[in-house]
Order: sequence, then C-alpha cells, then structure tokens
Amino acid sequence: MTGWNKLGIIAGGGALPLQIVEACRQKKTPFHLIRLAGFADDALKELPGADIALGEFGALLRELKENACDAAVMAGIVKRPDFATLKLDWGAAMRLPKLLAAAARGDGAVLNLLVAELEADGVAVIGAEEAVEGLAAPAGPLGARTPSQDDFTDIRKAASVIAALGPYDVGQAAVVARGLVLAIEAAEGTDAMLERCATLPDAVRGGVLVKCPKPGQDRRVDLPVIGSDTIRRAQAAGLSGVAVESGRALVMDRAEAIRLADAAGLFVYGYKKDEIDET
Amino acid sequence: MTGWNKLGIIAGGGALPLQIVEACRQKKTPFHLIRLAGFADDALKELPGADIALGEFGALLRELKENACDAAVMAGIVKRPDFATLKLDWGAAMRLPKLLAAAARGDGAVLNLLVAELEADGVAVIGAEEAVEGLAAPAGPLGARTPSQDDFTDIRKAASVIAALGPYDVGQAAVVARGLVLAIEAAEGTDAMLERCATLPDAVRGGVLVKCPKPGQDRRVDLPVIGSDTIRRAQAAGLSGVAVESGRALVMDRAEAIRLADAAGLFVYGYKKDEIDET
Repeated sequence: MTGWNKLGIIAGGGALPLQIVEACRQKKTPFHLIRLAGFADDALKELPGADIALGEFGALLRELKENACDAAVMAGIVKRPDFATLKLDWGAAMRLPKLLAAAARGDGAVLNLLVAELEADGVAVIGAEEAVEGLAAPAGPLGARTPSQDDFTDIRKAASVIAALGPYDVGQAAVVARGLVLAIEAAEGTDAMLERCATLPDAVRGGVLVKCPKPGQDRRVDLPVIGSDTIRRAQAAGLSGVAVESGRALVMDRAEAIRLADAAGLFVYGYKKDEIDET
Repeated sequence: MTGWNKLGIIAGGGALPLQIVEACRQKKTPFHLIRLAGFADDALKELPGADIALGEFGALLRELKENACDAAVMAGIVKRPDFATLKLDWGAAMRLPKLLAAAARGDGAVLNLLVAELEADGVAVIGAEEAVEGLAAPAGPLGARTPSQDDFTDIRKAASVIAALGPYDVGQAAVVARGLVLAIEAAEGTDAMLERCATLPDAVRGGVLVKCPKPGQDRRVDLPVIGSDTIRRAQAAGLSGVAVESGRALVMDRAEAIRLADAAGLFVYGYKKDEIDET
C-alpha cells in the first residue's frame, strides 16, 4: 500500500490471483477483480468484480476507473488468443495497430503494451510480488540443498541461453545437463518442457531447470513462476534442482514446494545476477 | 572422387548410409563400411566392413587404415551415449581429455573433434553431399509453392533464433508462426519438436520450420536433414512450409518429399544466406 488506494486484480488462470485477494484481505487493502473470461478460476466468481473478455480493453479500463482502482496487478495464466476471431471493443480496436505490431513481436511485447496503456490512463501497474509478501524468490537456497559447482556451471549456461533468446521474445526457461542444453521453452510452456525432459534417454537425462525473465521484459508482468508442480515435474525428469533469479521469479505454495524438493533431494535456489555472470 | 581412392562410410542409423553406398556403386567408387553398433541399419550387414562400438575410436581408425580408406564420411543418426558407461578402447582413452571437454560443450563439439582426429591421422573427411549427388538442398523452391512475404519474415526470425543459440551448441531447428517463436529444438530432435507443435492450441499453430546448421558447425558432419517424414510432420503441425539453407542441408528421398509437400500445399525452400539477412 504505497501511493495507491484500491487495487484492480486482472485475473488469469491458476491460483495466483486468489493469493493476491487473500493478501489484500489480510492487509485490509480494497480490491476489485477483473476476471478474464475463460481463464479466471471459479473460486473468484463471488468476489467483487466483473467478467471481461480478452479483447474488451475498453471495458477493462472503464471497470477499473468506475471502481476507483488507481493501481492494477496482472496475475495468472493467459494463453495467447486467436487474433483472427478475437472480438475487440472500441477501446481495444483503437489500439489495434499497436496491438498487432506487439503481437508480431511476441507475448512479452503484448504485455508490455498493456502496461503502457494502463499507465497512460493513470492506473499504476504493480508486480504480483509487491501485492503479496514473500512471493518473490529470495537469494540463496530455499530448502536444504545447495547447487554443486557443476550445477552452477549448468545454471550459468541455461541463464545464458535464455538471455541469448532475449531479442526473440520467447521462453524464459531452459534445462541444461552437464553442459548440454536439453530443452528450451517456447510456446509449449514449462510443464510440457519438463515432461519431454522426462522422456529423454537416460544417457542425457538430468540437469538443472533455470527460469528467469527475458531481458527487456517488464518486471511487473509475467515474471517466471515456480511451485510444487514444478518440483514434481523436475523430479520426474531426473533433475538435480531448480534455479531462479532472486527477486525476479515468484514461488507459489512455497512451503509445499520446499517440502517436496527436500524430500526428493532437489535444490531450489535463488541466484543473484552477479553470481552467475561469466567471468 | 576427387583426391581420394577409397571411402570409409561411418554409418549411424537411418537411410542415409545406404544411399551413400548406392552412390559409390553407381560411380564405381570403392568403399568400406564402419557400422556403428546399435545404430547402423540391418540392410548394411552383408556389405564389406566391420561393426564397431562407440568408444572404439582406435579400432575405427585401424579399420580405415587397414582397408586403405583415405577418406571417410560420417552419416546417419547417432544418439549421444552415456559417457559414464561407455567402453573406451586405447585409441579413444588416449583422447579422453579432449573428448570430455568437447562433450561438455555439446554434440557439435564432439563431432568436430572426431573430424579433427581423423584428419590428423591422414583420413580426409568429406560431407555426405559430396558423396551423393543431388543430396544437398538447391536454392529456391523445390516444389510447386514459394514462401509468401509473411513466410519469409518468419523464416528470417527462425534462422536468427538458431544463429543466436550458436554459442550453446544446441538445436538446428525452430518453428515460427506470424512472428511468434513456437518451438526451439534441443535434445529432443526435430520429429519430437514438430509433434509438440501439432498439439499447440489452434490460436498459435502454424508457421514455418527452418533447419540450418549452427554457426561454427563443421559443414561435413551433422548437416540438417529433411525428408518425406519431415513433410508429413510439418503438415500435421499445420505449417505452411519448410525452409533450409541451400547447400547446407540434406534432402532425403527428395521426389517423395516434394510430392507430399505439393499435395499438402506446403513449400519446401532452399534460401540463400543473403536472402534472409536482416537489412
């Protein structure tokens, strides 16, 4: 609660939006939900807010304004819609040239555009980790284990691969095992990527998962997320651990994720940028 | 047949080694097979040559020498072995430090090392496309269709993604649709990558497949390969076509591949490097 009075929660799929609602309640911060139709969880249905379709950007802005939201957070999973069949309201249609240009650059560019448009209209956009205390990954080991020197070498390579892909607005995750790049995330998402790592031949299986934001990605939207499900899939893929950039990734259901990781002997590590920079 | 007398064919999996055998027969070039155990096709079994396991590099060199092979071609699919359980003969063990250093950089580095070691021992290494006429992709459209301007934009982006990954010795294929990077190949291979493209939501499906060598990859080993199977999978993934760098990719069973592509309305295109360089 710094500098704003009421928080608009633009809610995609998954558990994160509800976690933000609960944080608001605890801190007695007023909030108003924008439930993205087809994505927002049913658990949000009865809460104060409105259902708005992707493409109704005008309605979204109006809803935030009419409910006196001077800040907004975008949270949860939204899959790229089919632009050919998307119904645009006037507010979205007015922004169509910008939207199409951003869509051709990638999902990150679309999100950055939404942030810019909200802020141009006087709505401050904050990151989910500002709304929920303890959501951002801290620095250092989160559980019992710490990466080995070999793990650090793999972490460094995976982070470099993601950085090299920066200009292409593509995945924010990669798996590297003993120097070999096993998988790079693109449109399939982290879960599908880990599932295919689990099917690789034994000779190459293993390694570390790194998730970090693409260079140039707005910190307030689409930060990489890990949770207990990530740990489960990482274990199934025979990985030795999961590393994220500290402060630049969200850790969901943290206690359970760490419990699972400790039981499976996996590290969960928040690295500082200078810790993995090549020398 | 320029400058050498007898060709050693180091045969991994798939149909390419047999195609080289047939080309040698047509041109009446003497040849000797090194069948890599566990990989080489059974169709090669009765031909003059020896079965050699991965890790028996000393035996491989001896076999080439004893059979007066002054040139060799590496062809066919070899999956990365489990270095921990690999049995090395003396010739391989002597090269172990180099081999481990290369293995940590990636498969391309291992292949480049093999080329260097063969050549240091007086065996000229040639590319499969030098052994078989008409195997390399020509420039321009191979079938009835030509990429549209939008396709070219996607081809350019996919080629840039592969180039950006050059330092990491990773995939040589990517799929881009309307500016969005849908998939990047790593250890799973092109077939698995196309299969997951086929399962993406309709809103993002489509695009072009580009296969091109990693920067720094030795032209004579592991050139990207496409064939009728690639076209089938590309069609299943809803792609508009397949593009390769002309002269730097192999087209297997070309007549059938083009017939399938034409029937499905897909382009197969060999681009020249300057055709897709960003301006």
